[in-house]
Amino acid sequence: MTDSAKSPIDFWFDFSSPYGYLMAEKIDAVAAKHGRKVRWHPILLGVIFQASGSRPPVDGTSSKSKYMWNDFHRSARHMGIPYKSPRRFPLATQNAARAYYWLHGRDCALARQFALAVYRAFFVDDLDISAPDTVLDIAGKLGVNREELAAALQSPEIKARLKDEVDAALAAGVFGSPHVIIDGEAFFGADRLPQIEHWLETGGF
Amino acid sequence: MTDSAKSPIDFWFDFSSPYGYLMAEKIDAVAAKHGRKVRWHPILLGVIFQASGSRPPVDGTSSKSKYMWNDFHRSARHMGIPYKSPRRFPLATQNAARAYYWLHGRDCALARQFALAVYRAFFVDDLDISAPDTVLDIAGKLGVNREELAAALQSPEIKARLKDEVDAALAAGVFGSPHVIIDGEAFFGADRLPQIEHWLETGGF
Repeated sequence: MTDSAKSPIDFWFDFSSPYGYLMAEKIDAVAAKHGRKVRWHPILLGVIFQASGSRPPVDGTSSKSKYMWNDFHRSARHMGIPYKSPRRFPLATQNAARAYYWLHGRDCALARQFALAVYRAFFVDDLDISAPDTVLDIAGKLGVNREELAAALQSPEIKARLKDEVDAALAAGVFGSPHVIIDGEAFFGADRLPQIEHWLETGGF
Repeated sequence: MTDSAKSPIDFWFDFSSPYGYLMAEKIDAVAAKHGRKVRWHPILLGVIFQASGSRPPVDGTSSKSKYMWNDFHRSARHMGIPYKSPRRFPLATQNAARAYYWLHGRDCALARQFALAVYRAFFVDDLDISAPDTVLDIAGKLGVNREELAAALQSPEIKARLKDEVDAALAAGVFGSPHVIIDGEAFFGADRLPQIEHWLETGGF
């Protein structure tokens, strides 16, 4: 199969997901090695958890939560990715997600840059990415017009677009973040990256 | 540090855990490469889930459950381990766990062989390892006296031993299976094997 005939990979994530961040730093390069493009889909995990009956991995002071906080950090070190535990967690991500889809409609490469910048703002610089001002600042640094984006965040079209993406995620069986789908095969979690590479190398194993 | 001075690794698992099975097939060899021994601790995940507020990964017909069934199989293929989805799942594992501890008190190498045989009986041969007869058959094939073991499964000492191990697991922060602890650092899931290898190679990263 020529590279152009290969289907794009779908990458579903929430901007508040540490493992989503780790996957975001790697997935494009892994896909490109195998002639694949990646479609990024920020979604709202709160809605996904409610609809799918799944639960957030971190939920208070349980043994599992304590483990996860350490594992986020250790997994980042293992993957060679900068990471700092944010003080505020989790955060609402609808502003960042809406901004992504609005940017994507105008310049998809810029939207990709924006998404990575949002993740780094949250998981490296510890910024409050739930705040519209933070989202506008991040986009502004990439040359986006703040006023236009601020208006877009309130537009019914962009709100509907995000809702449609969340519905599409549920229809595709997405129950968490990151969730990667390659030719119908689902891979959940940043720790599935070796399996994703294996799958892309072998065309399924 | 000489190899003999290195602390053993603790490996906590439930005989009904597919990822526990995958870890069981690999952990001793990985540890041995780095001069480490492994202490195996079968436990009862039902008790752990109840006490830790955690939940089983597979819980019905949700998107996540469907994903997990496929992921068990794919993870086994990725790791080069035989695997067949059992028809009965999950199964009660107190008989297998009690038999393990009784055997361990007599011959720890035999107990290790027995543990692997129980896992393969469940996840390769699709046997009902909850049944005392299955447990006795597996042990019998390893030369264990059936009558002695059958009596041991009912003994208060062995029941208390298993209870003590579950309590020790909870005290160590164990919330699922497999759960590996190396010098105080916890690794949850068969997918953490690359991090375990990285950790053993570098002495922590």
